[in-house]
Amino acid sequence: MVLSTCGSFDVNFVQDLHCVFCDSLYPARVLSTCPRCGITGILDVEYNYAAIARSLTRRTLAERPERSHWRYRELLPIGEGSALPALSVGWTPLTLAPSLARHIGLRMLFLKDDGRNATGSLKDRASAIGVVKAREKRHKIIACASTGNAASSCAGMAASMGLRSVIFLPERAPEPKVTQLLIFGATVLRVRGSYEQAFQLCQQACERWGWYNRNSAINPYLVEGKKTVGLEIGEQLEWQPTDWVAVSVGDGCTIAGVWKAFREMKALGWMARTPRMLGVQAEGAAPITTAFRTGAPLEPIEPHTIADSIAVGVPRNWKKAVLAIQESDGAMVNVSDDEILDAMRYTGRLSGIFAEPAAATAVAGLRRAVAEGTVGRRASAVAVITGNGLKDVRSASAAVGTPFDISPDGAELQNILQAKDLIMAEAS
Amino acid sequence: MVLSTCGSFDVNFVQDLHCVFCDSLYPARVLSTCPRCGITGILDVEYNYAAIARSLTRRTLAERPERSHWRYRELLPIGEGSALPALSVGWTPLTLAPSLARHIGLRMLFLKDDGRNATGSLKDRASAIGVVKAREKRHKIIACASTGNAASSCAGMAASMGLRSVIFLPERAPEPKVTQLLIFGATVLRVRGSYEQAFQLCQQACERWGWYNRNSAINPYLVEGKKTVGLEIGEQLEWQPTDWVAVSVGDGCTIAGVWKAFREMKALGWMARTPRMLGVQAEGAAPITTAFRTGAPLEPIEPHTIADSIAVGVPRNWKKAVLAIQESDGAMVNVSDDEILDAMRYTGRLSGIFAEPAAATAVAGLRRAVAEGTVGRRASAVAVITGNGLKDVRSASAAVGTPFDISPDGAELQNILQAKDLIMAEAS
Repeated sequence: MVLSTCGSFDVNFVQDLHCVFCDSLYPARVLSTCPRCGITGILDVEYNYAAIARSLTRRTLAERPERSHWRYRELLPIGEGSALPALSVGWTPLTLAPSLARHIGLRMLFLKDDGRNATGSLKDRASAIGVVKAREKRHKIIACASTGNAASSCAGMAASMGLRSVIFLPERAPEPKVTQLLIFGATVLRVRGSYEQAFQLCQQACERWGWYNRNSAINPYLVEGKKTVGLEIGEQLEWQPTDWVAVSVGDGCTIAGVWKAFREMKALGWMARTPRMLGVQAEGAAPITTAFRTGAPLEPIEPHTIADSIAVGVPRNWKKAVLAIQESDGAMVNVSDDEILDAMRYTGRLSGIFAEPAAATAVAGLRRAVAEGTVGRRASAVAVITGNGLKDVRSASAAVGTPFDISPDGAELQNILQAKDLIMAEAS
Repeated sequence: MVLSTCGSFDVNFVQDLHCVFCDSLYPARVLSTCPRCGITGILDVEYNYAAIARSLTRRTLAERPERSHWRYRELLPIGEGSALPALSVGWTPLTLAPSLARHIGLRMLFLKDDGRNATGSLKDRASAIGVVKAREKRHKIIACASTGNAASSCAGMAASMGLRSVIFLPERAPEPKVTQLLIFGATVLRVRGSYEQAFQLCQQACERWGWYNRNSAINPYLVEGKKTVGLEIGEQLEWQPTDWVAVSVGDGCTIAGVWKAFREMKALGWMARTPRMLGVQAEGAAPITTAFRTGAPLEPIEPHTIADSIAVGVPRNWKKAVLAIQESDGAMVNVSDDEILDAMRYTGRLSGIFAEPAAATAVAGLRRAVAEGTVGRRASAVAVITGNGLKDVRSASAAVGTPFDISPDGAELQNILQAKDLIMAEAS
C-alpha cells in the first residue's frame, strides 16, 4: 500500500566517523564526540560514496514512490532492517514566492516549508533518525534538552515508535511547544534556568540512567537527518540549485546538514554546482557570526532574542557551521528582533506561509543581505522555513496586534472598511 | 520543475448543479443556493463521469507526479486555464496507527493527517477552490465567516493568490487562529456574538460590497475541494477502502465531501465497494445527529462544546450530511467534551499526531462506536484528523496539565523519575 510508512533498509553505506577538529577517523560504533578532543570534538559521518553511486542515481531516485526523507536511505546512517516510525517525515513543499521575492529584492525565491512536518518543524528529520538509532540499541527511553522544537519532535517520534521520552526544557520555552510535549506523553522537566543548564542536566541524566541521548549537536547521526532537507531542495529544483540557500543558525547543526547535502549531491554527480550558504543569526544570539568573521574560536554569550529556537549562547556545532559557510563561499548576517517580526508579517501576507520567528529569520537575513549587497538583486534563493508559526503564537501576536471587535449589528463596519480601503476596492 | 505549484487545467467536466432539496437542475453558472428553495436549497455539483472516465483512470492517475489535491483536477469545478495558488494543498499522509487501533478496539486504524495542510486544517482544500473561483470571477476580495479554520485557510490561500481577505469571526475563536489570520494580512472582524451572527454579517457584507463569498455551506464549489481528502484516502489505500471512515461533523460539508469522493470512485470503476461513514458530533452541538435519528428537519440549537471547529448550532449543510450517512449505510454518534479531551491525549501518546479538539472528535467517536457495538471489533477504519492541535493550544492545555518545574541543580529529578517509573525502565 502507498502509505507514509516505509519498508526496512537492506544496506548501510556508513564508512567511518571523522572529527571536524582533529581529523581523526573512527569506526561507526563510536557514539557521541571524539574520544581525543572530548565534548568539543564533533564527529561527522562519512559514507562510501562510490558504492552509493552504484545503487542510487537521479534516475533510480525519480522512480521511488516513497515521498518522505527515507527516499534517501543510502545516505542515512541507518542499520539493516531497522524499524522506522510510522509518522511521515520530510518531503515538504518547495513553494515559489514571487511577491515575496519582489519585496525582498530577489529575482526568484522559494520557501522550503518545513513547518509542514509531523510536529511542525525541521527537527523531525533529526528526531526520526534518533528514535531509529535508539531502537537499534534496544533503548526504551530517549531524552533530549531543547528550546522546544527538538523536544516536541523527539516526543512525537518517540510516541510513533512506542518509546518513552524525557525532555529537559529551559524556562523560556513557548507554551504551545510545552503543550505538544505533554500531548505526546513525554515526561517534561522544565528547568528554572537557561538552555545550557537544561542541556547539562540532560547529559548527566543520560549518563546516569542509561537513556538514549538525542542531543543533536553531539550525536553525530542526527545531523544526517537534517541533511535530507538539502537533498529534497536539490531534487525538487531538478538538480539546478538556486544561487543561495538561507538558513537561520542556532546550534549550527541545520546549516551544516544542508551544506553537507549539497556537497554529497555534487560528489555523486547529481549536481554540477553548489549554492552559497547564507547563515543568519539573531543580533542578540550571534556567537557563530562572530567566530566566522574573526576566525577565532567561539566565545560563549548570553542569548537574547525573540527567536527562541535559535537562542543558543554556547552552540555545540559552531565549527561545522563555520566550515559550511566557508566551503560554500557563503556569508553570515545578523538581524534584529524587529527585522524578524517584520519578516513574519510580510512572509505571511505575501506567501501565505506562517513562519515561526527562527524561520522568518532566514527571510529577514536574505532581505538584509540583499540590502547590503552581499546577495545580488539578480540572484535566486531558497529560504528554509524551519518551523511553523503556530508553535510560537505569542511572538506572532506581538508582530500583528489584534483584530477589530465589532457588534453583531455591524454598526462599526462601514468605518473600518473605509479605513482599510475595502469598499471601493472591488469596483475599481 | 517538480514544485508544489501546478500548471493550469485544460478541461472542465462540470455538467450541472443539482438541488439536494427539490432535485432541480441548474447550469453551472448559478452561484450559491437553489433559486427555488432559497438559502436552504444547497446545490451539488454534478460531473460528466463518462467523459472523465475516458481521460482519468487509476493508471493515468498513478503516473501523475503532482502530489497535491490538484491531481484530481477533472473532478474539480475549475475553469480552463484558471490560476492556482502556489501554496501546496492536500496529499497529506495516511498513517497506520496500530497502538491506537488496539486502544480503541479496532483491527486496523489509519489517521489521515490533514493538520499537515498549509494553514493546518482540511479547510485549505475548500479555500483553495474558493480563491481560484474568486479569481475566475475577477474578484479582488474574498470574505468568509468562520469559527477559525475556514478563516485562516481563506486568508492564507488569498495571500498566496494575491487577493485581499475579510474575515468575520465569532468571539470564541481561539487566539492562535486569530493570530494566523492577522499574519496572513486579513482584515479581521471579531463579532461580539455567535458564529450564526458572524455568518449573517458576512452574507450581508458580500451582497452589499460585491466581494466573493467563501462560505462553504452555501457555495456549491467549495465542498468539491473537501472531497479530495476522500479521493486521497481511496488512492492511498490502493482502492481497497477500510470498513469505516470517521469524520467529525459541524456544518456537514466535510462528511458530505468525503462521501461524495467514495461515490465518485465507485462510479468511475476505481473501487468495488465503498466504506460506511461514521459521523461524529459533540454532545453539546449535535443537531445533525438528532435530525439523522428522528428523520425530522433540522432543529437549530445553541452549541456548547470545546471543539470550536464543529460548534455549529445552525448547520447549513445538514441535509447533505444526513444523505451521506444514509447512502453509505453509516451511523452517527455523539461524544462528550471529556471524551474529546481524552482522545486528544491518547491519540498524541499512541500515534505522535497532535489533533485539535474537532479532529480528536472523530477518534473519540470511533471508540464510542466500537464500545456500543456500532462498529465491530474486526473492523478497519480511517479517522480524518481535520485540524492541527497547535491551532487550539488552550484546549490541549486543559487536556494535559503542566510540566514538572525543577531547579538547575536537578535536585528534584530522582523523585520525579521514580514516580514516573523511568529509573529502572531502561534496565528492565
